Amino acid sequence: MEHYLDNSATTKVSQGAAEKAFEIMTENYGNPSSLHLRGMYAEQELVKARKEVAGRLGATADEIYFTSGGTEANNLAVFGVAEAKKRRGRRIVVSAVEHSSIMESAKKLEDNGFDVVRIMPREDGTIHKEDVLENVDENTILVSVMCVNNETGAIMNISDIFSAVKAKNSDVICHTDAVQAFGKISLSASKLHADLISVSGHKIHAPKGVGAIFVKKGVRLVPLHYGGEQEKKLRPGTEAIPLIAAMGVACSEFNIDKNYGYVSKLNSYAKEKLLKIDGVVLNSPENALPYVLNISAGKVRSETMLHFLENLEVYVSSGSACAKGKPSYVLESMNIGRDRADSALRISFSKLNTEEDIDALCEGIEKGLKTLAHK
Amino acid sequence: MEHYLDNSATTKVSQGAAEKAFEIMTENYGNPSSLHLRGMYAEQELVKARKEVAGRLGATADEIYFTSGGTEANNLAVFGVAEAKKRRGRRIVVSAVEHSSIMESAKKLEDNGFDVVRIMPREDGTIHKEDVLENVDENTILVSVMCVNNETGAIMNISDIFSAVKAKNSDVICHTDAVQAFGKISLSASKLHADLISVSGHKIHAPKGVGAIFVKKGVRLVPLHYGGEQEKKLRPGTEAIPLIAAMGVACSEFNIDKNYGYVSKLNSYAKEKLLKIDGVVLNSPENALPYVLNISAGKVRSETMLHFLENLEVYVSSGSACAKGKPSYVLESMNIGRDRADSALRISFSKLNTEEDIDALCEGIEKGLKTLAHK
Repeated sequence: MEHYLDNSATTKVSQGAAEKAFEIMTENYGNPSSLHLRGMYAEQELVKARKEVAGRLGATADEIYFTSGGTEANNLAVFGVAEAKKRRGRRIVVSAVEHSSIMESAKKLEDNGFDVVRIMPREDGTIHKEDVLENVDENTILVSVMCVNNETGAIMNISDIFSAVKAKNSDVICHTDAVQAFGKISLSASKLHADLISVSGHKIHAPKGVGAIFVKKGVRLVPLHYGGEQEKKLRPGTEAIPLIAAMGVACSEFNIDKNYGYVSKLNSYAKEKLLKIDGVVLNSPENALPYVLNISAGKVRSETMLHFLENLEVYVSSGSACAKGKPSYVLESMNIGRDRADSALRISFSKLNTEEDIDALCEGIEKGLKTLAHK
Repeated sequence: MEHYLDNSATTKVSQGAAEKAFEIMTENYGNPSSLHLRGMYAEQELVKARKEVAGRLGATADEIYFTSGGTEANNLAVFGVAEAKKRRGRRIVVSAVEHSSIMESAKKLEDNGFDVVRIMPREDGTIHKEDVLENVDENTILVSVMCVNNETGAIMNISDIFSAVKAKNSDVICHTDAVQAFGKISLSASKLHADLISVSGHKIHAPKGVGAIFVKKGVRLVPLHYGGEQEKKLRPGTEAIPLIAAMGVACSEFNIDKNYGYVSKLNSYAKEKLLKIDGVVLNSPENALPYVLNISAGKVRSETMLHFLENLEVYVSSGSACAKGKPSYVLESMNIGRDRADSALRISFSKLNTEEDIDALCEGIEKGLKTLAHK
């Protein structure tokens, strides 16, 4: 029996979302740009999905633009603001624990002469308002801080940070990568004081290949792509309707409070059981999002333990999937020491997990520590 | 009964491709970047699909990069070459009848100081080698000419054009947008003398939201996106595995010769029947790809006729779907006169069409001409 505990890497698509995608592919297969009925039917699916996503961000439908995923949404935020605002200023402030799609796009801007400031997290993995504020100046055009860190589950106080940034310099565009928060905690663009929010489909039981960006009315981004008039020219190219409609369905299936409660219990159960194992320590901060649990197990290298668990059909991650086994800059920035960072495991839950999955995980780690400790 | 004759806008996804996407979404749902088995199973699908696409372009798998569609592939070609080669030269030569994703990205480069030359087609809608050649100089870094025009079906002699370009300046990168040719005629990167080839999923009975670009070994492109290490960092972001695998299946289902023969017969049947209708004239060149048939019907505006036909469940296009009813720059560049351009209809076939579809179309146009002529 499979125990999939890597839901921050990706999730299984819900039956409803997958069926919607299938229906679109084989029946409602029109191109939304076509002027005839087949086009209109496809357009209706687009409208519906846009409303669903908007609703989950406290936004209006015309503030939502579909992208090919979280990476593109993040890239569009960083490059789109930089290009639109470069004549006003060249400073960009990002947290040092952002996803690679923010880190690498910021680095690209730095190579092109922008002034990129990276804010280190405190020891608990969170980004503090004061640390951001002291780096925001009159040349700052963008601040980007994620809602929830993908490796530790650390929750950032976005509302607090962004409102302080806006108070200091109201011209700054505030972007949050909400990929790991969307569908797990309630999000409201206005409460977050966010101008831009990135979300992704495949972390919320929708398919890979779709994401969206919220762009607050009045905020101008320069597009990354050029072509037709789709997505008000901010994101041309025939819309990925099967995926977009599936993402709409996945949003309509959100049951945030119920799932949060359920996953919190799973998390507590896991934490308690894991910490009883000799050599296991917790890396996630105390008040992290319960969907993510980062631990270190003995001095066994993450990848070694990961493959040991894999043989027992227990799937966890050594860090962010996108990093493909490279040392984690997120954990390193938390100053937990090299040994702990090298043996870190990310366990990430979804509503589909059960206590049996955790039992299998704990059994596996115990066995692994005994078997692998001398290697 | 529906008569879908707008297959150049988009196609119905094949049962096999749709089922593959469904299977990936609900069963084989891993993230290919994950180090465990769930990731590996997903990775295997990626490898398989890449081979399928490569095989259909006479390329090797490591020369294929998946994108979110044809627009992104075309953008990556234009911007990717411009950024990589801007220190060597700044001239870009494109045909004047390219898809908007080439026209608009070239225009963006022009705004940024590049020297963009647009080659007009001859009266038959094709681009002539001589016209391209006389504009290629030592500052030219990119030539982009499409294989088949999306509005008229005009087939360009890419092999001839690109080999002449290379003979004049071997440093020029030659790109062809093969979106309308892929799956319809056999394509070989080496025979075409192409360095870059763009293709799209949703024109070949695969889903919307996926495409690919062939990048000849040794050709360097600067990416549009930055993040993880997917697609050798040329196209980061979690791979859209359901769509990519479906595109692989659609490629494996190509039956180019058989379908070409079948559609040629449909095209001849349609042409003969349509030209018997008083007021119908042909806009597609004589030796166009049989999948596309562009006509003008009387002096009835395209959109008026399109909606008249729509009521009879006959779906055609007034031009490119991406242009959403704007006057066609492709037809205008062919010098057929405003009246004819304004009443143009694009009929586009797939292997799924039958003579009944054409009968319904002809009946509709005849009725339409009688009903609408006085409006």
